[in-house]
Amino acid sequence: MKKTQILSEGYTKVVYDTDDPEVTVIEFKDTVTAFRNIKRATIKGKGRLTCRVSSLIMGYLNSKGLKTHFVKEDGDNGQVCLKVRVIPVRIIMRNAAAGSIVRTFGIPAGTALKHPVVEMTYKNNDLDNPIINRDHADALGIATYQETEAMIETSRKVNSLLCELFASIGVQLVDFKIEFGYTADGTMVITDEISPDTCRFRNMSDGRQMDRDRYRYDQGDIIDTYQELTNRLEKAL
Amino acid sequence: MKKTQILSEGYTKVVYDTDDPEVTVIEFKDTVTAFRNIKRATIKGKGRLTCRVSSLIMGYLNSKGLKTHFVKEDGDNGQVCLKVRVIPVRIIMRNAAAGSIVRTFGIPAGTALKHPVVEMTYKNNDLDNPIINRDHADALGIATYQETEAMIETSRKVNSLLCELFASIGVQLVDFKIEFGYTADGTMVITDEISPDTCRFRNMSDGRQMDRDRYRYDQGDIIDTYQELTNRLEKAL
Repeated sequence: MKKTQILSEGYTKVVYDTDDPEVTVIEFKDTVTAFRNIKRATIKGKGRLTCRVSSLIMGYLNSKGLKTHFVKEDGDNGQVCLKVRVIPVRIIMRNAAAGSIVRTFGIPAGTALKHPVVEMTYKNNDLDNPIINRDHADALGIATYQETEAMIETSRKVNSLLCELFASIGVQLVDFKIEFGYTADGTMVITDEISPDTCRFRNMSDGRQMDRDRYRYDQGDIIDTYQELTNRLEKAL
Repeated sequence: MKKTQILSEGYTKVVYDTDDPEVTVIEFKDTVTAFRNIKRATIKGKGRLTCRVSSLIMGYLNSKGLKTHFVKEDGDNGQVCLKVRVIPVRIIMRNAAAGSIVRTFGIPAGTALKHPVVEMTYKNNDLDNPIINRDHADALGIATYQETEAMIETSRKVNSLLCELFASIGVQLVDFKIEFGYTADGTMVITDEISPDTCRFRNMSDGRQMDRDRYRYDQGDIIDTYQELTNRLEKAL
């Protein structure tokens, strides 16, 4: 299997086509962004770590019977993944208050939520990725009721599995976003990445943030912290 | 039954307490507002017409077995209503695209929606009345899952009944907002108002707006149009 052309490139990942029609290679870049990509930097080694964590998590979810795009790791910062048609919807799962929910509702950061709060956004930069609900997704032809139900259902399962996994390594899963797509044979799979760039993690012992908030809010020690999270996950899995 | 003190006063209505512990008197004012109350005017006779339409609609819903706060009309611009503890959630039902859904998603105004789109907002001026979903309502302690389900279910029934009623008088119900509260005995009832100030109506024959959009977008003929809508409703009911 050989990489051929670039299929798409964003701030944090490059997706390559390959000579196998069913798979792509995704390379994780050292770019980190925040605040709708307005704040950006290159942090050497970041791509390797988000790639490694996402590989570990996606592999873990595969092993638990959930379907993801992840096939195997490919070098230091790459993954062989199933080729997917991405559904332009992002599911956000929240176990405690952080980020936009704190700004919107004025509840203190860190407040535990009685039940996980599920939000959806429409991945559309021209529209500034607006929040949507299942009716909007249907009305706009983005995803059917059946599709959004399946995505939310799977996201809840992922949340349960990952809350437990991270608790076992002393980390609270505060929130995360997750994306879905269809493989060539019509299977809905988890796609994109699940990493400290797309989740909020808090170290249980001292409340330290172990995710992209370290970059957002200039807390420093990004590589050391991502590495520490990776080490703990590697031991657990 | 006699009015006693003012319980609350907003831009468009005054709620009076009465010597009957179970009822209030609501007076509809001539004030009309738009764009989060930034644009405001007094239009003589407006309160009488929104009061009359809301009385007709609430009475109609009562007659169809739905529970509302409306008891009876009281003079030209008043209603005797059950006293309620308002749930701080607004349900918005959309049958065609107008207003914020047009601005947010860039779909053309007037586009019919495949299925009614339901939105919820948290009535909280300090937070700028943010859009919420059922998880937020639960997490913030605003309304339980059971309550939001009941509110949405009733709103769907109201939508069906009113779409049919207004179609019978040549008017399309584009969208509306609806509020709920609890009476002293714990019954959930429809409250606030349902009128051309809180709905969007389009005249089917010529596409004319027959609602507050005439004020929002300076289309004029507000009183004449509200009166025409009232006359047609009176004939139908």
